[in-house]
Amino acid sequence: MRKISRTSLSKIVLLIIDGLGGLPPPETGKTELESATKPNLNRIARDSICGLIDPVSPGITPGSAPGHLAIFGYDPIQYHIGRGVLEALGIDIKLKPGDIAARGNFCTVDAKGIITHRRAGRISTDKNTVLCRLLNNITIEGAEISVLPVKEHRFVLILRGEALSPDLGDSDPQQIGLAPKKIEALSPQAQKTAEIANEFVSQASSLLQGKTPANMVLLRGFSRRPHIPSMSEIYKLKPAAIAAYPMYRGLARLVGMKVLPGGESITDQLNSLQHHYAKYDFFFIHFKSTDARGEDGDFQAKVHAIEELDKALPSLLSLDPDVLIVTGDHSTPATLAMHSWHPVAFMLKSRWCRPDDVTEFSERTCLTGGMGRFPATEIMPLAMANALKLDKFDA
Amino acid sequence: MRKISRTSLSKIVLLIIDGLGGLPPPETGKTELESATKPNLNRIARDSICGLIDPVSPGITPGSAPGHLAIFGYDPIQYHIGRGVLEALGIDIKLKPGDIAARGNFCTVDAKGIITHRRAGRISTDKNTVLCRLLNNITIEGAEISVLPVKEHRFVLILRGEALSPDLGDSDPQQIGLAPKKIEALSPQAQKTAEIANEFVSQASSLLQGKTPANMVLLRGFSRRPHIPSMSEIYKLKPAAIAAYPMYRGLARLVGMKVLPGGESITDQLNSLQHHYAKYDFFFIHFKSTDARGEDGDFQAKVHAIEELDKALPSLLSLDPDVLIVTGDHSTPATLAMHSWHPVAFMLKSRWCRPDDVTEFSERTCLTGGMGRFPATEIMPLAMANALKLDKFDA
Repeated sequence: MRKISRTSLSKIVLLIIDGLGGLPPPETGKTELESATKPNLNRIARDSICGLIDPVSPGITPGSAPGHLAIFGYDPIQYHIGRGVLEALGIDIKLKPGDIAARGNFCTVDAKGIITHRRAGRISTDKNTVLCRLLNNITIEGAEISVLPVKEHRFVLILRGEALSPDLGDSDPQQIGLAPKKIEALSPQAQKTAEIANEFVSQASSLLQGKTPANMVLLRGFSRRPHIPSMSEIYKLKPAAIAAYPMYRGLARLVGMKVLPGGESITDQLNSLQHHYAKYDFFFIHFKSTDARGEDGDFQAKVHAIEELDKALPSLLSLDPDVLIVTGDHSTPATLAMHSWHPVAFMLKSRWCRPDDVTEFSERTCLTGGMGRFPATEIMPLAMANALKLDKFDA
Repeated sequence: MRKISRTSLSKIVLLIIDGLGGLPPPETGKTELESATKPNLNRIARDSICGLIDPVSPGITPGSAPGHLAIFGYDPIQYHIGRGVLEALGIDIKLKPGDIAARGNFCTVDAKGIITHRRAGRISTDKNTVLCRLLNNITIEGAEISVLPVKEHRFVLILRGEALSPDLGDSDPQQIGLAPKKIEALSPQAQKTAEIANEFVSQASSLLQGKTPANMVLLRGFSRRPHIPSMSEIYKLKPAAIAAYPMYRGLARLVGMKVLPGGESITDQLNSLQHHYAKYDFFFIHFKSTDARGEDGDFQAKVHAIEELDKALPSLLSLDPDVLIVTGDHSTPATLAMHSWHPVAFMLKSRWCRPDDVTEFSERTCLTGGMGRFPATEIMPLAMANALKLDKFDA
């Protein structure tokens, strides 16, 4: 791809509708997407080549990171993003290459040090913030310590220093009735980092004494920002992202996208797209509420989220991008109220896409489209081809 | 495949319609193949299993070499054919295993040695032939030099000798305003070959002095014939090729096919097939003009090329081969006037193919066929199976 990609004036817009894929309740036999009134999505489908994507592979339920990475063209199994890093991305922390991040929980332990509640009764975010400030007083030789609050009982621990290693076990045993585990070095070069991490837990335990229910910490998912070649290296693109949620902005930054301002609503996001349209040649727009409503198990609310998105689309269509892709990073069927493995509707509109006979954007119809069922990692080569940004492979 | 292939009396005929795939102009919504009157192709489709092939992978536009190699069953990314070798194949040069081939251009340089025209104003082939004769006087210790004219400003340089390496950079900077580059050894063992190549350029420059516009040479794509296991090794076939263009004869020879005589027209080619039918069990027939008319951007001429082919088919059908495959090596839509990434219609007819419901040979209908959309490298196993030339895999 690096050898055959080239720059050109054409523009690619990638609209990811988070958790788009759904399941039909037996009463109607129609998924959320099939139930929604969506004239604009259907109009795009008429001029598109359609298909159904498998974000990772059939049967595998993707987290948000692999779902997006695959669409951005990265093998989601090769490019693994650790839990700590993902949590850091989620609160807009810009990790340096050597930084080690871990996901932390405040928890409750009894007098013998046995865990009685893994989430400290879900303390408030305000309380969390106060406790994190306390833990930021910890100093350990060999690493700069930062403790950053997330939501409720969750925090991120960042270790910054020379020659640290993320090759560490968890302290979190993931169940009550046990003591937190000693953090183990999983390779010889992680020995020093393990000592620092255990020293952090020990000092935290002292500082939190008497702060019941949040009188202890649990750590897991020690990880470092992975080396991911940027989209400009691979595709020679100038990519930008418009996403309301920090984790998606973080994922976009990881692959070298410029994060543009864009408000909470899809209308704000599309205004931002219009405003910055001249300066970039690839735009990733992230629409979140379909996933949130699916996770809530609220079928009708997810249908309405799709309809809200559809109503906003004319401003995007008025830009008439050379390549427009609409798809989702995974399914979040309201009937399951969680991410799922089901493939996701996909469509790509361009002057050169060889449109198929699909006239409605839905799981059922996309299956009969020109792409059939295919892996999400093939989207970027296809986008580049349709933007006429790829040279011929060999003579 | 080597373990389960076996010989039998059955015959396989593979008809490759170069650049077959097309795109619909908006006015008609029909590709070249969909627009053509083609009763014979449609008759074959009725008794076939149909599909759409991706020669390399979705979004990748194949050159002629990877497009053919994939259909012959070779991974086109693993078996890379360099520019120099391809150019040599294109003028029917039989390269020995150690030979190094480079693609050459005659070009124009100014008094300071700066390139002012990369193609020397596209000198005539006659002029080219005279200049190549001149350059064949060059002698360099360590390699036998051959300079062979191609068309207009193009030539092939062959270096033959002991322990030569193709691991060389280009001298062609691919733009005007620069001097030709010194040819660099890209690995230590290519040092001697780099010196020979640079000495060739230096002597050529002296010999061409005053021959403006063709007063210098540019070299690129140093390469060696790749080691490709032959089709008889892998499939135990006795394969033969009938192709009017030298490059396709060269590709056929690379994979161990016997090149049979066959005139320019498809009628001549099919006469040759009849004549040699008893002596081989696999025949590759190459039909070129669809690609040429697509490259011209002449939609109607490409449609007519397909119709011309269709009219010639009864003589092929009268042989009633056990397996008949009709497909293309890539798309060359007239609307793009170049090779493209779009998948290509495919059909396979045999007594054992389990025909689908497709009754017309076209991109749109083949998508609904029994093979769906699939990689071209799966064609050969399928052909072998339908010819009953494969044993069961494991007990």
